[in-house]
Amino acid sequence: MNYCSQCGSDIEIRVPEGDSRERHVCSHCGHIHYQNPNVVTGCIPEWEGRVLLCRRAIEPRKGYWTLPAGFLENGESTQQGALRETLEEANARVAVEQLYTLFSLPHISQVYMLFRGPLLDLDFSPGHESLEVRLFEEREIPWDELAFQVVSETLKYYFEDQRRGAFRLRSGVIERLPGERRRYRTTLHE
Amino acid sequence: MNYCSQCGSDIEIRVPEGDSRERHVCSHCGHIHYQNPNVVTGCIPEWEGRVLLCRRAIEPRKGYWTLPAGFLENGESTQQGALRETLEEANARVAVEQLYTLFSLPHISQVYMLFRGPLLDLDFSPGHESLEVRLFEEREIPWDELAFQVVSETLKYYFEDQRRGAFRLRSGVIERLPGERRRYRTTLHE
Repeated sequence: MNYCSQCGSDIEIRVPEGDSRERHVCSHCGHIHYQNPNVVTGCIPEWEGRVLLCRRAIEPRKGYWTLPAGFLENGESTQQGALRETLEEANARVAVEQLYTLFSLPHISQVYMLFRGPLLDLDFSPGHESLEVRLFEEREIPWDELAFQVVSETLKYYFEDQRRGAFRLRSGVIERLPGERRRYRTTLHE
Repeated sequence: MNYCSQCGSDIEIRVPEGDSRERHVCSHCGHIHYQNPNVVTGCIPEWEGRVLLCRRAIEPRKGYWTLPAGFLENGESTQQGALRETLEEANARVAVEQLYTLFSLPHISQVYMLFRGPLLDLDFSPGHESLEVRLFEEREIPWDELAFQVVSETLKYYFEDQRRGAFRLRSGVIERLPGERRRYRTTLHE
């Protein structure tokens, strides 16, 4: 951020009076430009024990498999966002039910919310952001080709709960560990 | 938003290629300035059946009572944010436990997350943003002087569950109904 979006003047980085964090503050009009985490909302589309995954047509993680999910838009609820993303990425209609996983990803300032979503029919196909969409049984899940850690964690809990015959909310934090390799630590709050 | 925060040029409002919504787009460098909902995180500080509330020293709703809560910051988890807000607004230390209410407020593009938080001690006092903080039994709650609908709903469920002796997550949507008066519709997803 270089310029004030209100008045076009230069931005300086400083701690505003009464605040404890550095912010982007306009040197002319004083407007404080806060930056806050985004919500990613999506669902686990399910059909007779199988789960629908989308192979990403866009970066990041192009070519890897993921659950339909994306940034929550202004003016919509998290459930509406999950329905919209599922329609956009997989042309699939679901009945969004209870929240299943809620994870903070502080290293990328995101909060992920994934809902269980029974498919209403089998009429689905790749949306603009997907190369391929299909249903997977547990033994078919491409664990090494999943796009994001939050998707791996969610599917792991999902199939555990499916075997137990009872689903319950998992909430917690997924932190990326230092280093080049993609390594994470997941902490559940229970 | 009038100017591009990247290059300082004029902003135009249009639907970018491949998108379906109007965005703030730079007329010169083409940067798309997305605007998305914010997460508000906080807790229900509890002590032997009583709940700590803060009387707001700032607008909106100055002078009204609320639960300690505020905008999630970049790089923090929702639980860390709840702890921080409770410390900032009430100088109180809690053990943040499970998520208790999760509400979308689409009319103001916010997602509220309130956690149960047993107080670790009774050493609390008003922070900068509070006029007064104190513990309330159910019969003492100032229902007509609560700051926000999401606080009223959360406290209503909280005391219902306290009487039942079992607490469970409530998630849903709180919509503001049209008109001058503050009227809302709450829909739970269960």
